[in-house]
Amino acid sequence: MRIGIDIESGERPFQELIRGVFKSIQNNSDIQYIIIGNSKKIKNSFPEIENFKNIEIIHADEIIYMHEKPVYAIHKKKNCTVNIGIKLIKKNLIDVFFSPGNTGATVVSSVLNLGMIDGIKKPAMGTFFPRIGGGETLIIDIGVNPEAKVENLYHNAILGIIYYNLIWEKSNPSVGLLNMGGEFEKGSLLLKKAFTVMSNIPNFIGNVEGYNVFNGSVDIVVCDGFTGNSILKIAEAMKKFFIDTLKNVFSDNKTKSKIRNMMSYSFSLFGFYNEKKKVLTDKILPKYFGAAPVLGIKGLVMVGHGACTAIELINAIEFSKILFKKNYIDEMKNNAKKLLKKD
Amino acid sequence: MRIGIDIESGERPFQELIRGVFKSIQNNSDIQYIIIGNSKKIKNSFPEIENFKNIEIIHADEIIYMHEKPVYAIHKKKNCTVNIGIKLIKKNLIDVFFSPGNTGATVVSSVLNLGMIDGIKKPAMGTFFPRIGGGETLIIDIGVNPEAKVENLYHNAILGIIYYNLIWEKSNPSVGLLNMGGEFEKGSLLLKKAFTVMSNIPNFIGNVEGYNVFNGSVDIVVCDGFTGNSILKIAEAMKKFFIDTLKNVFSDNKTKSKIRNMMSYSFSLFGFYNEKKKVLTDKILPKYFGAAPVLGIKGLVMVGHGACTAIELINAIEFSKILFKKNYIDEMKNNAKKLLKKD
Repeated sequence: MRIGIDIESGERPFQELIRGVFKSIQNNSDIQYIIIGNSKKIKNSFPEIENFKNIEIIHADEIIYMHEKPVYAIHKKKNCTVNIGIKLIKKNLIDVFFSPGNTGATVVSSVLNLGMIDGIKKPAMGTFFPRIGGGETLIIDIGVNPEAKVENLYHNAILGIIYYNLIWEKSNPSVGLLNMGGEFEKGSLLLKKAFTVMSNIPNFIGNVEGYNVFNGSVDIVVCDGFTGNSILKIAEAMKKFFIDTLKNVFSDNKTKSKIRNMMSYSFSLFGFYNEKKKVLTDKILPKYFGAAPVLGIKGLVMVGHGACTAIELINAIEFSKILFKKNYIDEMKNNAKKLLKKD
Repeated sequence: MRIGIDIESGERPFQELIRGVFKSIQNNSDIQYIIIGNSKKIKNSFPEIENFKNIEIIHADEIIYMHEKPVYAIHKKKNCTVNIGIKLIKKNLIDVFFSPGNTGATVVSSVLNLGMIDGIKKPAMGTFFPRIGGGETLIIDIGVNPEAKVENLYHNAILGIIYYNLIWEKSNPSVGLLNMGGEFEKGSLLLKKAFTVMSNIPNFIGNVEGYNVFNGSVDIVVCDGFTGNSILKIAEAMKKFFIDTLKNVFSDNKTKSKIRNMMSYSFSLFGFYNEKKKVLTDKILPKYFGAAPVLGIKGLVMVGHGACTAIELINAIEFSKILFKKNYIDEMKNNAKKLLKKD
């Protein structure tokens, strides 16, 4: 696999991601790393980099910053890391491109330079939520297309099915449309139309709500990018709130003295608490692979967190390897054709 | 205060709410309770009810069920509990009406029979989310008006300001517009327009996201009813998920045996856990007063949970008392006029 890595667009200094590459390379002699960024700066900071025969540096003059407007920036900054990376995919010089930068810009450049998979009109991204009984629920779209039309919601479902099956090997995952509860009329005209169109999907279970996300009653929850983004951000904020509250509840002075009291016995209660806290924190974290692909475009483009760390980059590379080995692009193309034809 | 109580539209048997009334009456000799439901059934189950001089029963033949379409049901079932209750407000025979039934139907009947406050076009409802550092964040609207226009979002802000001030006595609460992160273009044309219109609000802090809800950086988060409803339901489902996960983490067999081990010491660890769990659960529950008013209409109409219990009804009555004593309707009318004129 040849992976292009935009090391400059993230929120951390570029050294962080180069360190990630150096770590990743130790277990991946078969990967070719194409680092995209300011070559002079890179070589100055890491003179040893030229000794690695499976690292190549491609120079980029420009970066798109987080606050920039995607369409404008992509056209103005022709030689930015993102445009260069995406064009390397187009020329078949790399297999995967990873960027921790401006998601909108990465999406726009992908659509312009690589184009959409046949039959799919707009790209989408998804994220996996955890469940009470284990397993994962995919929410799609989480922000690429905030004003989705009926057709886009339907395509989100199709992309979600293919992606879910590729990762979790479940060939007929169930699909639900995020809507409001029975006590109000069931959503807008657009959602009613989307419901009708999505009824063609074999495993469509109808309208779903918040509780379905966590109880395992549906595999894929389809929504517009604005709603998905709002849900994702509330969930992330609530997770933080929950962990902070947990910490406060278990660390007030009265509790501390009780714990000290107990500590005088042979059993290490602090260790017990810390172990439990770790298990708990792991369990409520949404499954995150360091990056997520932009679904629907003709190429494997991975978007990472803005504050991507070396560890997250390593995870993103491992996740890219899995998708690449599973023939991500062919699977997306062929299955989209199959599923769209069926209806 | 004279309060009309729809005892039939909830998901529990009507006896539950009558029991709530009997409890509430013990501390509220100054409240007149007007129970709306099937008078024969009520008197059969509670023959003693006729001895209470501050309980009156108003007979209603019909109920609107949760699954019914609000507009259709309100017109078809003229003599349902909800229509009767709302009309009692209109005739000034009661001060407050409470229903645990179909929210959409209650809203539709309120708008038709009571009308809107001058200057406000659509009703809205809000809910309070907890914060890490204490205090409350109001999310408005949570589902009354799923397809809000620019004007409706602006009015949600106005209603939110008056309501927040009335409850928390903060005269200039801050207002934010729920929008997407900086890495995408900032939302739809509608949201851009709403942003401009809302800039007239003195304490408008601009676009906000999920994390603002929990960190105390904003008092009122304005959104359309579809997004608000999705957020609320995800938050409720996630709360359940957290608590279940917490329970599982602390109750696996290894932990149980450790706890048993510790129990042999004089300190009651089970008691300690249970106490902590209670504190934690209380802290992550959104502040809920048993019911919430339908904001923007000319009357104090309180909507409760479908599965409203006797305790929740008691809370709803206490909350209604507070709003009534604070001259809810006059405050809403006068402040709406003042705030709308200012802009």
